Amino acid sequence: MSVTIDDVRDAAARLAGVAHRTPVLRSRTLDALVGAEVHLKAENLQRMGAFKFRGAYNALSRLSPRQRARGVASFSSGNHAQALALAARELGTTAVILMPADTPASKRAAAEGYGAEIITYDRYTGDRVALGAALAAERGLALIPPYEHPDVIAGQGTAALELLEETGELGALLVPAGGGGLLAGSATAARGLHPAIRMIGVEPEAGDDTRRSLAAGERVAIPVPRTIADGQAADIPGELTFSINRRLVDEIALVTDDQIRDAMRFAFERMRVVLEPSGATGLAALLSGRVERLPARVGVIISGGNIDAARFAELICPVPDGATVG
Amino acid sequence: MSVTIDDVRDAAARLAGVAHRTPVLRSRTLDALVGAEVHLKAENLQRMGAFKFRGAYNALSRLSPRQRARGVASFSSGNHAQALALAARELGTTAVILMPADTPASKRAAAEGYGAEIITYDRYTGDRVALGAALAAERGLALIPPYEHPDVIAGQGTAALELLEETGELGALLVPAGGGGLLAGSATAARGLHPAIRMIGVEPEAGDDTRRSLAAGERVAIPVPRTIADGQAADIPGELTFSINRRLVDEIALVTDDQIRDAMRFAFERMRVVLEPSGATGLAALLSGRVERLPARVGVIISGGNIDAARFAELICPVPDGATVG
Repeated sequence: MSVTIDDVRDAAARLAGVAHRTPVLRSRTLDALVGAEVHLKAENLQRMGAFKFRGAYNALSRLSPRQRARGVASFSSGNHAQALALAARELGTTAVILMPADTPASKRAAAEGYGAEIITYDRYTGDRVALGAALAAERGLALIPPYEHPDVIAGQGTAALELLEETGELGALLVPAGGGGLLAGSATAARGLHPAIRMIGVEPEAGDDTRRSLAAGERVAIPVPRTIADGQAADIPGELTFSINRRLVDEIALVTDDQIRDAMRFAFERMRVVLEPSGATGLAALLSGRVERLPARVGVIISGGNIDAARFAELICPVPDGATVG
Repeated sequence: MSVTIDDVRDAAARLAGVAHRTPVLRSRTLDALVGAEVHLKAENLQRMGAFKFRGAYNALSRLSPRQRARGVASFSSGNHAQALALAARELGTTAVILMPADTPASKRAAAEGYGAEIITYDRYTGDRVALGAALAAERGLALIPPYEHPDVIAGQGTAALELLEETGELGALLVPAGGGGLLAGSATAARGLHPAIRMIGVEPEAGDDTRRSLAAGERVAIPVPRTIADGQAADIPGELTFSINRRLVDEIALVTDDQIRDAMRFAFERMRVVLEPSGATGLAALLSGRVERLPARVGVIISGGNIDAARFAELICPVPDGATVG
């Protein structure tokens, strides 16, 4: 069970006219700062605000009519929940999603707004994978996990496919790594098109499970990371995603939370787009010089922009002089 | 001295490969909220963050080699200053710009960063138009004002031209009005392509000089407006821009500062793009229901995104509970 460039191409055909073909953004200021021509694939401008719609929709569109009639299940506190809910609505099926009981109300409301049923669990005592499997079995639903699924991975790969179709060959491609689905899909697409491209995953320093795993040659678990990049707070790479990434990824760049904040501010003030912390790590790696021997032409997937204005202000703007938060 | 669709087409040819062909953004959430198919031309993603680059570059590219060798002058505390500075640099000439002495340091630095020379004046005692003319005469510079110039207006019209090339005919087009250059250029392009299109200018309620002038059939001056939409704080329409807008604009919609704030928050949270207040008034008019009998397909020019993160937070985010700013 692997994923090929043909799977990514098939996914692209399914997504045509449903997912946005997101723009590739350029900034001469950015190019001058990093000393390379940078092409940013703006998946923050994707439907529901992140690349996740691609994988969820691709997976759901491959279900049999019978499965579609019964519905799907998953687990996520983040963008996959909204993505699955929206994809289910688009395809006329229903989604049931397990979310931790302490998920912010706005994220729960977003998934419910797309028509999903939400079931909560205690993140400290519950095993979401086991709970998801039990839920799916009990109700006869198809389980569509956030990244451990070939159709999800193939769908995520379509962003890199579109980027490279537009730019032609690039020297390197930077992609955020959480569970590893976007990285695996991107590497499949990019290496399939240009075997010599340098594939660089990007993780928050505190959440370097993929870097450690690649170094060890096997999946390594780390303590649950504390980072503002909540979409990349995985503590171990997926089995399927790691089997792909160990084959296709050259290196991992690490960025600190402060570097992520700086990249979010740069994106806001100089490129006028909103990035959530996990969506900004590729840009952060470039701006902070965390990639050595940068080639002349570089691609970056800026992967998501789901952050509310108040949280953005809290992360980016220092409390004004003289203000105290009681 | 007027402006025709052919002037706009010529400007588009000059701008090809220099200005960004900005994306047209869609949001199904927005469509559902306003009950129409909305196409947003994202000039906040233009070079230097606003449509102003189009007009400045077009005007400068029409200078004779002799004029270009001497340089250009203008007056602006806003986006035209940066636009002119960048266009001058691109074309290998120099820009001298009059700015009020109390211009925020960041705006001055942005224009200087593109290589412009800044001269300050006292906005309470100085007449910027007269000072600009004197400066240009004294140094032998070509004066390129922010909107009272046919080449500037033709350049601004290229955004609407691109939008309509991409969408085909639209029922209405909403365009922010300050001095009236973007509105005049857009109306020239849109009416030239589709004579039946409904042209709607949008102003802040406190700065309704164009609405009053259209109603009166002549240019009406109002007290200097107090509004967060600083790019639309004109107190009287331009002579040239008004002569075009009175012929081609059907109506003016007005929006309050709170409606502008709501539109900025919507753009941030639901579309993941940054809009400055003046850039958000068209979207604000739609979201607040200020346009009656909305047609099925509508275009909006979201015209600029130059706002720093701290100012955005101040405008959009309430001070947290228990915080006091001392």
